[in-house]
Amino acid sequence: MSVQRPLQALTKRATPSQSLTLQYRTRQPHRSLASVVPPVTQSHVGRQGPTAMVFMNMGGPSSTDQVGDFLSRLFADGDLIPLGPLQNYLGPLISRRRTPKIKKQYAEIGGGSPIRKWSEYQAEEMCKILDQTNPETAPHKPYVAFRYASPLTEEMYTRLLEDGFGKGRGGRAVAFTQYPQYSCSTTGSSLNDLWKVRNRLESPSRNQNLSAAEAEGSIRWSVIDRWPTHPGLIEAFAENITAKLETYPEEMRDSVVLLYSAHSLPMSVVNRGDPYPAEVAATVWAVQQKLGFRNPYRLCWQSQVGPSAWLGAQTSDTVNNFVKQGQKDLVLIPIAFTSDHIETLFEIDKEVIHEADQLGAEGRVRRAESLNGSPTFIKALADLAGSHLKNNEVCSRQMGLRCPGCKNEKCLQQKKFFMGQGAQDNAAVTL
Amino acid sequence: MSVQRPLQALTKRATPSQSLTLQYRTRQPHRSLASVVPPVTQSHVGRQGPTAMVFMNMGGPSSTDQVGDFLSRLFADGDLIPLGPLQNYLGPLISRRRTPKIKKQYAEIGGGSPIRKWSEYQAEEMCKILDQTNPETAPHKPYVAFRYASPLTEEMYTRLLEDGFGKGRGGRAVAFTQYPQYSCSTTGSSLNDLWKVRNRLESPSRNQNLSAAEAEGSIRWSVIDRWPTHPGLIEAFAENITAKLETYPEEMRDSVVLLYSAHSLPMSVVNRGDPYPAEVAATVWAVQQKLGFRNPYRLCWQSQVGPSAWLGAQTSDTVNNFVKQGQKDLVLIPIAFTSDHIETLFEIDKEVIHEADQLGAEGRVRRAESLNGSPTFIKALADLAGSHLKNNEVCSRQMGLRCPGCKNEKCLQQKKFFMGQGAQDNAAVTL
Repeated sequence: MSVQRPLQALTKRATPSQSLTLQYRTRQPHRSLASVVPPVTQSHVGRQGPTAMVFMNMGGPSSTDQVGDFLSRLFADGDLIPLGPLQNYLGPLISRRRTPKIKKQYAEIGGGSPIRKWSEYQAEEMCKILDQTNPETAPHKPYVAFRYASPLTEEMYTRLLEDGFGKGRGGRAVAFTQYPQYSCSTTGSSLNDLWKVRNRLESPSRNQNLSAAEAEGSIRWSVIDRWPTHPGLIEAFAENITAKLETYPEEMRDSVVLLYSAHSLPMSVVNRGDPYPAEVAATVWAVQQKLGFRNPYRLCWQSQVGPSAWLGAQTSDTVNNFVKQGQKDLVLIPIAFTSDHIETLFEIDKEVIHEADQLGAEGRVRRAESLNGSPTFIKALADLAGSHLKNNEVCSRQMGLRCPGCKNEKCLQQKKFFMGQGAQDNAAVTL
Repeated sequence: MSVQRPLQALTKRATPSQSLTLQYRTRQPHRSLASVVPPVTQSHVGRQGPTAMVFMNMGGPSSTDQVGDFLSRLFADGDLIPLGPLQNYLGPLISRRRTPKIKKQYAEIGGGSPIRKWSEYQAEEMCKILDQTNPETAPHKPYVAFRYASPLTEEMYTRLLEDGFGKGRGGRAVAFTQYPQYSCSTTGSSLNDLWKVRNRLESPSRNQNLSAAEAEGSIRWSVIDRWPTHPGLIEAFAENITAKLETYPEEMRDSVVLLYSAHSLPMSVVNRGDPYPAEVAATVWAVQQKLGFRNPYRLCWQSQVGPSAWLGAQTSDTVNNFVKQGQKDLVLIPIAFTSDHIETLFEIDKEVIHEADQLGAEGRVRRAESLNGSPTFIKALADLAGSHLKNNEVCSRQMGLRCPGCKNEKCLQQKKFFMGQGAQDNAAVTL
């Protein structure tokens, strides 16, 4: 692939008439070989099934004794927390120092994060719907891959291989990010991890012991990499906001301020050109549109860590300032995570709202429920995944574009790999 | 007005059954008095006309000898460039130092800013359409009020009074911001200025020499304060982007990266909770949606000044980095101004693109035309203003909400004034 025009190469719609595609096809002619070595798992039920649906997320410790491992993985991840060349030294140091405090927080929310429970539930329920709506790729098998907690990407991949995907048998898997808005810190980090694990377990160049058939019949991946304004997602948010607004007296309902709160990013990541802040804003605007702009609102940013500059306004400051201004009726809406986690159950519920009450908010600062088991949300996931499968999408066109300030060679290679998967069967690269 | 619930007070839909509205009506019973002192200018043509349509913008020097005055006003404005308690000392110092350099830049783009020409043209053309679509408020008379250049707000207001508005004759005026996305630095600053000038010229409490009739028959203001995703605006942007994309060879057109560029904000303003970054992102998303997400894109930020932290990624860095990555096909899109000005004609055209070419971009970094005289854009302005007039809107519901970190008493008073205008005739406060 030419370095001169990386994006053109990466995002080109793959049609046989284009030389670039031919280049891919020459290099990785999976399609023709796939007919020689048909995927064992893919002939019985649907025309193209079974299909692995892999939910990617950061994860969280299921019990307090997993907190240490969770934090040590988290602070080791330079994609999420860029600590520079001292990452390997500083990461463990910070994670060890923070473990006792964070353990206490998890203890206070019931002893662990519910994110695994919700992710597994959402994936399973979505697959049940997909089996109905997309029989051609059925059965759809749910998997979860977390970045910092069990099941880790490697565990998930090993299970995929055990379940009959790959190793000469081909098979299709969809990496479905559960972060609706793309950040290199979150979805990007998960994709870098998936690409790394995939190379370790399936890349011919790294696995001398793979037979030729095994190497050629590796899993074919596609990615749902962002979905910030999917109508079903927006509807699910709007439902939960409306439900929370109904807990206020009718005559003051339209005056409640909606505070959309997303996990913040270090300014170094924002200034590198990370697409996340703009995509979060797109979600917020779409929800406000859905709600008819009845309520005034702001987008704010939570969970800053450490002394460096992060994107604001900070959620906690925002709430405190509004309460001090006399604006006590506030609904906080977690807008960039889809399940409950420590940032909702502890940070918002037990810190931000508690502090507001101490400033005199009188219980009028509340939080909209996270999407969790919302049937509207799960229907949205199925709709999104169903279209992705039907349209044979590889990933969004936007995914091919590295951040302008990106110096991470892994990102380039990862993008090349996932975009290249599209060349196998002329799949369209679309959003 | 109660300080306890400022927002509820400010954004309440004014219906006669609500005590707050009654409070306004008791204090400022313009409507009933208006029937005693009928507006001289408002009985001949339309049922409610004439209507003054006031385009608000920052403005620019029309000739190089106006540059000094322009910059001295600009750096004196703490809403735009917060220099703290030393504003009155630092402002003139910085503006004097920058004048020779900026004069040279204006000389290079033809001796002055075209913003007055475009603003007057757009306002006049819009009014012609409104006279057809909204006969009940006709005739619509175009005015321009700039924040830092002639015609200044005060000149505009004096003309309004000379033209038969106010001074006991009532009359309706619409303050129509020409910044599609709301920032306290831009639209907020213009509204603060309008409120200040209005108080000086029309407020009974400040004008002991006004007769009772004159004081009561002051101009009734409403505000179009933001319109980041108006379909006509989005269409106008999409048209200009498509036209620019057509200058690239067809086979590489979908691989051109779209770089939406907006004026940046100091992080101190962003962190105060300014709504601008999120609204700019909403515009970008809407344009991308309109274009079917065919091209990868980024939102970046230009025109940073001084040593403090500003929101990035910076446009110039973004372009340079992409070109260095080998991604040379880039279309820059000015997304937060609607007319050409120094930031497009000089900064993008003569600095950013020139630098890219020096890095080897080979003329493949280009700029989409500004909206300027686009008929689609002017139709959008008329559509927006036409709905505003027909629905008797006062301002958006969002305008009532101060930034969480706002310490500016002027903002509070200004918002109270403009929201209060709605109580005169039960107008709805909507977006």
